[in-house]
Amino acid sequence: MIIVIQCRDQVGLVASISALMAKHGYNIISLGEHVDVAENLFFMRLEVDGDQANPELHNELQNILPAGASITINPLPNKEIVVLVTREYHCLADILIRNYFGTLGATVKCVIGNHNVLADVCHRFDIPFYHVSYEDQSKEQAEQKIAGLVKQHNPHYVVLAKFMRILSPQFNKDFAMRIINIHHSFLPAFVGANPYRQAFERGVKLIGATAHFVSDELDEGPIIAQQIIPVNHAHTAVDMMNAGREIETSVLAKALKLVFDDRVFVYNNRTVVIE
Amino acid sequence: MIIVIQCRDQVGLVASISALMAKHGYNIISLGEHVDVAENLFFMRLEVDGDQANPELHNELQNILPAGASITINPLPNKEIVVLVTREYHCLADILIRNYFGTLGATVKCVIGNHNVLADVCHRFDIPFYHVSYEDQSKEQAEQKIAGLVKQHNPHYVVLAKFMRILSPQFNKDFAMRIINIHHSFLPAFVGANPYRQAFERGVKLIGATAHFVSDELDEGPIIAQQIIPVNHAHTAVDMMNAGREIETSVLAKALKLVFDDRVFVYNNRTVVIE
Amino acid sequence: MIIVIQCRDQVGLVASISALMAKHGYNIISLGEHVDVAENLFFMRLEVDGDQANPELHNELQNILPAGASITINPLPNKEIVVLVTREYHCLADILIRNYFGTLGATVKCVIGNHNVLADVCHRFDIPFYHVSYEDQSKEQAEQKIAGLVKQHNPHYVVLAKFMRILSPQFNKDFAMRIINIHHSFLPAFVGANPYRQAFERGVKLIGATAHFVSDELDEGPIIAQQIIPVNHAHTAVDMMNAGREIETSVLAKALKLVFDDRVFVYNNRTVVIE
Amino acid sequence: MIIVIQCRDQVGLVASISALMAKHGYNIISLGEHVDVAENLFFMRLEVDGDQANPELHNELQNILPAGASITINPLPNKEIVVLVTREYHCLADILIRNYFGTLGATVKCVIGNHNVLADVCHRFDIPFYHVSYEDQSKEQAEQKIAGLVKQHNPHYVVLAKFMRILSPQFNKDFAMRIINIHHSFLPAFVGANPYRQAFERGVKLIGATAHFVSDELDEGPIIAQQIIPVNHAHTAVDMMNAGREIETSVLAKALKLVFDDRVFVYNNRTVVIE
Repeated sequence: MIIVIQCRDQVGLVASISALMAKHGYNIISLGEHVDVAENLFFMRLEVDGDQANPELHNELQNILPAGASITINPLPNKEIVVLVTREYHCLADILIRNYFGTLGATVKCVIGNHNVLADVCHRFDIPFYHVSYEDQSKEQAEQKIAGLVKQHNPHYVVLAKFMRILSPQFNKDFAMRIINIHHSFLPAFVGANPYRQAFERGVKLIGATAHFVSDELDEGPIIAQQIIPVNHAHTAVDMMNAGREIETSVLAKALKLVFDDRVFVYNNRTVVIE
Repeated sequence: MIIVIQCRDQVGLVASISALMAKHGYNIISLGEHVDVAENLFFMRLEVDGDQANPELHNELQNILPAGASITINPLPNKEIVVLVTREYHCLADILIRNYFGTLGATVKCVIGNHNVLADVCHRFDIPFYHVSYEDQSKEQAEQKIAGLVKQHNPHYVVLAKFMRILSPQFNKDFAMRIINIHHSFLPAFVGANPYRQAFERGVKLIGATAHFVSDELDEGPIIAQQIIPVNHAHTAVDMMNAGREIETSVLAKALKLVFDDRVFVYNNRTVVIE
Repeated sequence: MIIVIQCRDQVGLVASISALMAKHGYNIISLGEHVDVAENLFFMRLEVDGDQANPELHNELQNILPAGASITINPLPNKEIVVLVTREYHCLADILIRNYFGTLGATVKCVIGNHNVLADVCHRFDIPFYHVSYEDQSKEQAEQKIAGLVKQHNPHYVVLAKFMRILSPQFNKDFAMRIINIHHSFLPAFVGANPYRQAFERGVKLIGATAHFVSDELDEGPIIAQQIIPVNHAHTAVDMMNAGREIETSVLAKALKLVFDDRVFVYNNRTVVIE
Repeated sequence: MIIVIQCRDQVGLVASISALMAKHGYNIISLGEHVDVAENLFFMRLEVDGDQANPELHNELQNILPAGASITINPLPNKEIVVLVTREYHCLADILIRNYFGTLGATVKCVIGNHNVLADVCHRFDIPFYHVSYEDQSKEQAEQKIAGLVKQHNPHYVVLAKFMRILSPQFNKDFAMRIINIHHSFLPAFVGANPYRQAFERGVKLIGATAHFVSDELDEGPIIAQQIIPVNHAHTAVDMMNAGREIETSVLAKALKLVFDDRVFVYNNRTVVIE
């Protein structure tokens, strides 16, 4: 059983929470906690044995925690997601494979692409694919259709797996802190379009990828995971793009696993990740 | 104040320990714990505010912990060490610099070398250097002198900073789990002499360094820290040796910091490292 | 056009080869070379513009190179491979995806499994899957069937993508330096069965994966690529196995790309990799 | 003997250069070259046996290379440097140690600090230390004194080893592409002051260090080397600063080695690094 708590910090929280677990005979398998001293905030992820929570547990926790505590007992074990893509296959394919073999920690409800080149690979895994082109309609119309499709599938999370369009503030607001994007640079370097081109022009010796929640500001949302690989003068912008695909795939996979395992807390445009 | 605990595991340990801290009004700054489920062992490193321990704390902890618990309150903040060297300077120099600037977490009492090429750098930092040659006396005599010098300085730890001689079982026993060695390979690969030559001959694509406690078996003691760097076909054994020096230095520095900060537990020829 | 050369070293090889290219008006796009000084061997991988080789080029190269030189002009751009698997999907799925999207640098002719759990994913990509069980027949019979199937497809390379059976010396001989295996440790550490269990028991702080050509000696063949990830005391052997899957996948993918791009030379149980 | 060439690219350069080496009986030990196709530029670093260059070699190279070629035969093996520091010791100490043991590839002529806390460690290695305070005089006066001291020692390179003052455009111009700085972030992220504070506030999951040549624009000069280490939510800005010191030291050391070994070419605000 997993218990996730976020609240104001005060002396004795770990003691009282773990005493409550002991009272119920729950053995603690893993306990991850963090205190943001400056903000006086307490975060905890608890794994205890036993699948079934005592029906009183939520109330009991509420009684020992400061007012306004966020408490989640046994968060949904299998989240549902919608994936948005454009043309690049690597992140999507990795998600489809993990989905098919049951190791994604979530279920892919459907894939929406603003091009249709990735329809076939989705169909091979019996995943519905919707093609919403930006070519033959306005940006607003296209996005409205996408928003409609997403809402129709009512996912817990929306994953932008190399979706190369910028979504409207309204969309981002509707799914606040529930949209996960993979950006192909080590943010905050190279915000926006063509980060590999920007990286090439700056002559960097390493390139990166960043998985983050989407917020109102482009590429400014809370960072979940980042990784880099070395490059050198012999890499053109295209070489960097090719080399970068491997870490885009692995960083997004890692971030998704963390989120789906309820290991990521979000506050103040940053994340606490209890690994 | 730091509190370090190692004992048999049982339900409610975290609760009762943290309740005791709350009772004394100690705010928990950091709490690192690990349970070895297979061995039923509990490890905890606790940092609480306040420098002064309540004189009753040790007894109170003993009362709530299983029999045989090892409890250390406020471990010595500044350990004393003796460093053994041969000819290579890089690990020793790093230790001397950190010692001089007060960031080693320990004090170097003296350096003993089986060659004297490193005497001058020690003297520049006012550190006594003893030269005990293996050339003009038997191995046994030389080691007896080294053992005598070490015991005379009565250090908490002995650091083998590229000391290229094998110490006798008796010496290792006298300083059991208090001798820290840097071995120039990612153990358990390439035990013994000339690991870079062995690595070259095997044609590996990465080389490593391992900091470990010394036990009776050569290069078989508990591992504290390891790191690797990539190499390729163009690296000769000598190139590997040169490249390896950088990670030898950083791995040993990291391991010493962990040990001196009381973050390393040893049991069953392995370590628990609470970072 | 790619030209790959391996021969005895002598003064002026680069000069005479590059002069020959200049004579034909081939612009050198990339030139990678290595000299093993101890063995007096010269290796070169040359990429020049133009797809069509002058019919005289091979003879002309032979004339300027030492006797016995191995010269390959325009190596087959798209190798054919057979993949052997057991139960684990991650390496196979990565290969199938790259094969499907045309970025593998090779074509998967078929997959052979000693279990049939991976049949479905192969069929989803229209790749023939053969199930050869070791349960209802002798090891020799099973392997004979596998060898027969492999020979029938006549691949350039055989990829052991987590194939958990040891092939016979005869099989390894028939496909000498054409079988690529992924081993789940940083060789030469933890040869043989259950390397993650071995790693756990040794208490290492990093685990690795090694892609290598298969030779007569188990896990002793020439290493193509290696990678590691950090682990700690909290990782059980099973956790290590799970964490290791990501690098097994990426190391094998990297090694295959290098081999299929004709960047890997093999000699004296080692590799030269021109990246 | 080392030969360094930078010129316009044309067909046959490698051929004609290596033919010239063969004519003189120079065996090529290592040959690193790079062509920037977009800019039509050719870079080469050649190591051949023999210490003594034929007096005709320079003329002969000039004859076979395009007009305007930059040719350096046997670049100065031991550069002289002046190091500028503020309060932090780690980069300076690393340089002093390598200087003392003869592995820096350069000689430290003197150290200049705008604080005097590092005077003693310099004196322990018999290195002159000059204290130029910014407190009791204007920024312009202080810098003029520093410039005077630097010019008096006439170094090949000026190393800013955590010098926390911004030098004037005139100073940067006088030593164009001869000032090497270590910046404590993975540029171009976190330009300017307090990069660790900036990194903390952005909530990044990795921090970095960048060694670069100083140009007119703050932190915008050509990058020589970069490295990162992972951080997490538990790192305060101060923790990041402490953790970052290790990579600042190693990145600067690596960059200096590359520059002092004549492996770094600079053009268009970027570097070609022949490793």
